[in-house]
Amino acid sequence: MNCCILGAGAWGTAMALHLDRCGHSVTLVPRRIEHALDIASRRENRDYLPGYKLPHTIQIGCEIGPVLMEAEVIFLACPSKALRSLCASIKPHLQAAWQLKLALIMCKGLELDSLKTPAEIVAEELPGLACGVLSGPTFAGEVAVGKPTAVVLAVGSDCEQPERYQEAFSNTGLRAYLSDDVRGTELGGTLKNVYAIGSGLCDGLEMGDNAKAALLTRSLNEMVRMGVALGGQKETYFGLSGFGDLVATCAGQWSRNRTFGQRVGEGEAPQAIVDGQKSVVEGYLATECLYRICQEQKVEAPILAVIHAILYEGLEPLTAMQQLMTRDLKSES
Amino acid sequence: MNCCILGAGAWGTAMALHLDRCGHSVTLVPRRIEHALDIASRRENRDYLPGYKLPHTIQIGCEIGPVLMEAEVIFLACPSKALRSLCASIKPHLQAAWQLKLALIMCKGLELDSLKTPAEIVAEELPGLACGVLSGPTFAGEVAVGKPTAVVLAVGSDCEQPERYQEAFSNTGLRAYLSDDVRGTELGGTLKNVYAIGSGLCDGLEMGDNAKAALLTRSLNEMVRMGVALGGQKETYFGLSGFGDLVATCAGQWSRNRTFGQRVGEGEAPQAIVDGQKSVVEGYLATECLYRICQEQKVEAPILAVIHAILYEGLEPLTAMQQLMTRDLKSES
Repeated sequence: MNCCILGAGAWGTAMALHLDRCGHSVTLVPRRIEHALDIASRRENRDYLPGYKLPHTIQIGCEIGPVLMEAEVIFLACPSKALRSLCASIKPHLQAAWQLKLALIMCKGLELDSLKTPAEIVAEELPGLACGVLSGPTFAGEVAVGKPTAVVLAVGSDCEQPERYQEAFSNTGLRAYLSDDVRGTELGGTLKNVYAIGSGLCDGLEMGDNAKAALLTRSLNEMVRMGVALGGQKETYFGLSGFGDLVATCAGQWSRNRTFGQRVGEGEAPQAIVDGQKSVVEGYLATECLYRICQEQKVEAPILAVIHAILYEGLEPLTAMQQLMTRDLKSES
Repeated sequence: MNCCILGAGAWGTAMALHLDRCGHSVTLVPRRIEHALDIASRRENRDYLPGYKLPHTIQIGCEIGPVLMEAEVIFLACPSKALRSLCASIKPHLQAAWQLKLALIMCKGLELDSLKTPAEIVAEELPGLACGVLSGPTFAGEVAVGKPTAVVLAVGSDCEQPERYQEAFSNTGLRAYLSDDVRGTELGGTLKNVYAIGSGLCDGLEMGDNAKAALLTRSLNEMVRMGVALGGQKETYFGLSGFGDLVATCAGQWSRNRTFGQRVGEGEAPQAIVDGQKSVVEGYLATECLYRICQEQKVEAPILAVIHAILYEGLEPLTAMQQLMTRDLKSES
């Protein structure tokens, strides 16, 4: 199958390595031409996934047009804030993309102004193209070396023969599980980034494992309640792309969002951290987006509100998190 | 309130420190008299919670009888396999225990032969005494120093004024949340120990964070399905005493059950590990008990079955866990 990955962050690059191992014809297209040239000459993505050699069977593309003419599936692997412009750069080439059947979204977040999900943006910008979401606990470095990983492949009814893609993208290392809940799958991935920041705050404030587990328990329940209110299926949030991704992000050592929260907990200024690093902290913007949505739709989300106040209103993390832990005594739910 | 803690493991000792800080009259009664003498003379539980000084306001009791005459609440803080004999030693003194109103169970496990839960055993052995369960993510060392902790206090309808106990046992560090689902609360604590072993196996086999998150996702779903089949409420398993305790045990650095699984994953023989250490690995026996219950009641639990086969039937961990990760492709649920 001809697969084209648009965006060469850590996750896109790891997916290129995985699809290459599955035997597909893979082209990786970085956003910037200098980045493409650097990867092509060194066979390594030094900026976002250093230390992993890219075999010569993976082509590095510099332009979207020629690549799209042969692609059957495109993987949209940019940060969510760049998704609409990526779609806009795809659009002029769609007519010549004879083979193209499916766009798979790999980013987790919402659009700041419109508060739309990635699938909504793709549907608007690339109408007529079937679209799905790849999500779940997927630390890129582990996928890159073929460690066991399970992902959700959520596609709508406009995707023909989803089982064909499920099989094509699975091998003994990475397994894809099908879902028809596109909205829940993408909201789960977005929501968990916010709660991963909360978990990192706990770490940064050295509140301990008991406190972190208690916060995570409430976070899961808040995430499910919010997710259902915003339109996904409850089961999805308890699955790989909700609970699974939350647990990985909070317990794993690799999460940018958890690490971001930890640094805020240790006293650094949120905006300064975001400005100071190459990789995008999706949870930072997601907190703002989801907070606005909750306000508009009158959904109650006390943990999200506290994280938002810490990140955007200068609330002191220790006081805020302690207050969250010592609410009035009542039943658990 | 006069509180008596029977059993001086790590958790019982930490609870004594907490209740003392709450201002109660606390007596800690170790099972062995030598242990009582050692703790009393050194004001430290060197065997199970070394490094934490016990203030002189905590009394160390050598005999159950005199202590029970003044106690309003007893905390049963033995390993589950010792619960029935602990109850038997309490029974002769019940008539003289004028003040006694409530027994709170602090162990997590089932009785090997009868497959009964702790609350069932207490109801059999100490009929007429109201009984409840304290559970949740409670690493003893953190409770001992007053780090933020949230626990579930589950009591049946025979407990009068549960809010009184909730308030009495809560302070700014540890918060107790009330539940009326005694069975679900104790089953959650038992079930999670099994899946914590699975999580440890992942660690020992160096399967990676993605695999561990995927396994945990399936574990949570299996735990909830089994728990509901065995009679608890679904919400309880998604709460502190189910999900919360599972997450703490799998992500935290202190869990005996996770560490046990890790050592098995690294190649040690399960029985040899159990025999070689003072502290009880509750999940080891719980795996056998729950496996038998599932067989009897025809409840499907594939992860439990694999962990059981590794611990009790000599199945090779790596092969077994890999098989679990690469099941036939299908939808997630």
